Amino acid sequence: METELRELYSQAFPFWDHISDWDRETFVRSSQTVKYYRGANIHDGGECTGVIIVKSGSLRLYMLSDEGKEVTLYRLFPGDICIFSASCVLESITFDVNVDAEEDSECVVVGGCAYEGLWQKSDEVKIFTYETALSRFSDVMWVMQQILFMSMDKRLAIFLLDVVSKTGGDTVKLTHEQIAKYMGSAREVVSRMMKYFASHGIISSSRSEGIKILDKKRLRSIAM
Amino acid sequence: METELRELYSQAFPFWDHISDWDRETFVRSSQTVKYYRGANIHDGGECTGVIIVKSGSLRLYMLSDEGKEVTLYRLFPGDICIFSASCVLESITFDVNVDAEEDSECVVVGGCAYEGLWQKSDEVKIFTYETALSRFSDVMWVMQQILFMSMDKRLAIFLLDVVSKTGGDTVKLTHEQIAKYMGSAREVVSRMMKYFASHGIISSSRSEGIKILDKKRLRSIAM
Repeated sequence: METELRELYSQAFPFWDHISDWDRETFVRSSQTVKYYRGANIHDGGECTGVIIVKSGSLRLYMLSDEGKEVTLYRLFPGDICIFSASCVLESITFDVNVDAEEDSECVVVGGCAYEGLWQKSDEVKIFTYETALSRFSDVMWVMQQILFMSMDKRLAIFLLDVVSKTGGDTVKLTHEQIAKYMGSAREVVSRMMKYFASHGIISSSRSEGIKILDKKRLRSIAM
Repeated sequence: METELRELYSQAFPFWDHISDWDRETFVRSSQTVKYYRGANIHDGGECTGVIIVKSGSLRLYMLSDEGKEVTLYRLFPGDICIFSASCVLESITFDVNVDAEEDSECVVVGGCAYEGLWQKSDEVKIFTYETALSRFSDVMWVMQQILFMSMDKRLAIFLLDVVSKTGGDTVKLTHEQIAKYMGSAREVVSRMMKYFASHGIISSSRSEGIKILDKKRLRSIAM
């Protein structure tokens, strides 16, 4: 178990080989392997959950409004590191993000205090932390550009193609409400666009069978 | 002139006293003091303009879509440092931002190569650069939250109060088009809301005199 953890850390953290035995020991002792069920909330803003490494499954980071509206910022897959859940380390970050398990997921969580302790004394850890956080800035800006600048038909076409390319087949088992949440849009807008796609024979949509893509070629041309 | 520059740098850059004489010399020799007229474009995405320090006036950072739609991300005032214009340093940042002078502005620009040279060899410079960049991440997220989650009446009320609190008086000398650009919205949406505010006696709007706030108390209650 501990060997496995050390293996994981030496791959995930480029600073692992440059810190002291004692620091490595602290890291390992503050770590937890956690299994989250699909849909579980892992981090909800303010508190410092710690640094999360995804071992299997996938996590979703999103913003949540007071009224419960969600906007998905990005997803984390095996090998990815979630830094924004360690709010104690990123003092300059004053916004709250939420993290949910999108599938059953196994994660390793490094305790916030242990990570912060190391962060305080090592420039290399600081630089790694900041670079990891900054690389996600681009993801967020991309989402923002999509929402602000891209037409809804294009966004929805990209989304649907994206889902079927991940899950295989040609069916999307999500409600309009769920799709709206993923896309940072309103259910009404998604439903209207689905109706338009259906009327052009691009998809068929039913409550029992979900959304079925009938004309992938056409959908691809909209997505381009 | 050079003394003034060194003074400015010792205030702007916490690492200034910790770098070598030679590095300071390189910094100063690669620097330019530039006067930008109101409306001038200072940086337009891809290229590395360098690190900009605002001496007077104000700059506006924004995203620009292919169709010319703008979304203002934040503003820079005297003493502020613009890092995103030094794209060569921030490799992990893959999105483009534009920078315009919002007023006549005097700036000092540190050449991208000189800054990068120092960034390469000093952890302290790296950490400073990343912290400066990350602190703006929160600004951008705030804008995003506003756009995605806040109702338009509230956003417009906050915007108008914000402008008059900065300029004094009770008049906003901006067109609906300009306001829409600042708010990342469409002119039609702003005009519709202005019409609503006018019909409730909160503002009056005319082409010649601009927007006049008649009922600040009411506007404040909408903004809350």
